[in-house]
Parts: sequence; structure tokens; C-alpha cells
Amino acid sequence: MEFAVDDESAIRQLVATWLSATRAGDTETLLDLMTDDVVFLVAGQEPFGREAFARASREQAEASVVFDGASEIQEIRILGDWAYLRTRLRVSATRPGTELPMIRSGHTLSILRKDAGEWRIARDANLLVAAGAPSGHS
Amino acid sequence: MEFAVDDESAIRQLVATWLSATRAGDTETLLDLMTDDVVFLVAGQEPFGREAFARASREQAEASVVFDGASEIQEIRILGDWAYLRTRLRVSATRPGTELPMIRSGHTLSILRKDAGEWRIARDANLLVAAGAPSGHS
Repeated sequence: MEFAVDDESAIRQLVATWLSATRAGDTETLLDLMTDDVVFLVAGQEPFGREAFARASREQAEASVVFDGASEIQEIRILGDWAYLRTRLRVSATRPGTELPMIRSGHTLSILRKDAGEWRIARDANLLVAAGAPSGHS
Repeated sequence: MEFAVDDESAIRQLVATWLSATRAGDTETLLDLMTDDVVFLVAGQEPFGREAFARASREQAEASVVFDGASEIQEIRILGDWAYLRTRLRVSATRPGTELPMIRSGHTLSILRKDAGEWRIARDANLLVAAGAPSGHS
């Protein structure tokens, strides 16, 4: 199905653009990749949306935090104008003046929505933990 | 739309049944609430499926671990034969011989699939952390 292949390619491109914009500290591009009502879920925090994301992203850019990362797409499933996406992700963040990057790795589960022809992140569960951290599972 | 209301009610019932089966240590009922290809995501662990879930659940039942929990549904969205679900969840687990329950709380994001007329959990991201634990966010 060419339609599904095109959607899958567009979602792979979204993941690639997300990573390159994160590396570049490009908050505006990141905001363009999420829906207006996006909800981010991270362990140990209340869910947050677009504004809190933008604030944190701009603060990190101003503090010259250098991000790098690699993601491996484990599953994409298109459900009409919606999709879900699972990735394995590894990100490093280096603050100026610190020698060692902070490295976090783990998995993500995201809900995407096709919004005016563009796929965007609508819900995102980020299960990353500090690399080498003990399991949070009881 | 009566159709959507019925699906939403069925999903609310699934959440209630999941909690009561967890309290009862009823592994077979829990297994009936998930798809054959279910994937569970937990921070600090590799993704796992139905068999690993069943093994852990039976071990906990044999060890007479007593579970309790409360969930608050924050969002249900039906996407045809698929849906996604967000909850805020709090669970306690008490092992025989220990005085204090282990309490974990946080959020979940799940993908559900309607499978032979029954809604089942297909993908589940569990972002719970030990209550009082420091934030895992950098």
C-alpha cells in the first residue's frame, strides 16, 4: 500500500527531524513537530504540554547544553490519521563546564496525529533512565 | 454517538477489571485483558510480553504479595478498532513479613485494540515511580 508506505516514511522523517532539531537546540522546529494539545509523560513528573516543553528547551539552549542522540524505530503502526510509534532512544546532554555528558537511554511510546497533512506528536511517554541506573521496577 | 459511548464504557470496565484482577492475584483474568502480541514498557527494563508478564504475576501470587491500587482515567480516545488510554495510577504491594507496602504512583499510556469484539491492552507504557522517589528527569 503506497499510502501506508508514504505515511511510514513521513513518520521516520519526523523522528530524524526531531533528533536533528534537538542536537541543534532548535526549539521552533521541535514545536512544529507536535500538536497544540500535545501531552508529554515522563516518570516522576506531572504530565506537561507545549508551553512547558518550549520553556525547558529554550532554557537548555540558552545554557548552551549540547545534546546528542540516536534512536532506533521499533514499531510504527498507522491507524488512519493516527499512528503509534515505539523507539529505543539514547540521548546525551553535556552542560558547559562539566566534563561528562549525562546519558539517558530507554524506550518511548508515542501517539502521532496527521494534522493538515503533517504527522505530529500528540502524546509521548518517555521511559528513559540514566544509563547505569538501577531498574525502577519492583 | 452511542457506538463511541459503548466503546468508552467497555474500556472503563477493562480498567476496573484489570485493577480487581490485580488485587485478586488472578493472572488468568489479566492475561485475558491483553492481546497475544502485547508489549509492556517499564523504565529501566527491556520491553516484555505476555509470557514474562504471566511468569511475574504467578510468582507474585505464589509469594502471597498483596496488591491494591486506584486508577483515574485521564483520557480515552477511540480510533476505530484501536484506542489509546491515559491514566494516573497508584499501586501498593505488600510482601508477607514486611510491614510497609511498596507504593508506586504515576501515569500510564496504553494502546488498546478491539479483538473479536473485546477491548484488550496491546501496548502499555508504565511511568510509575516509587512514591517519594526523586524525579528521574534531567
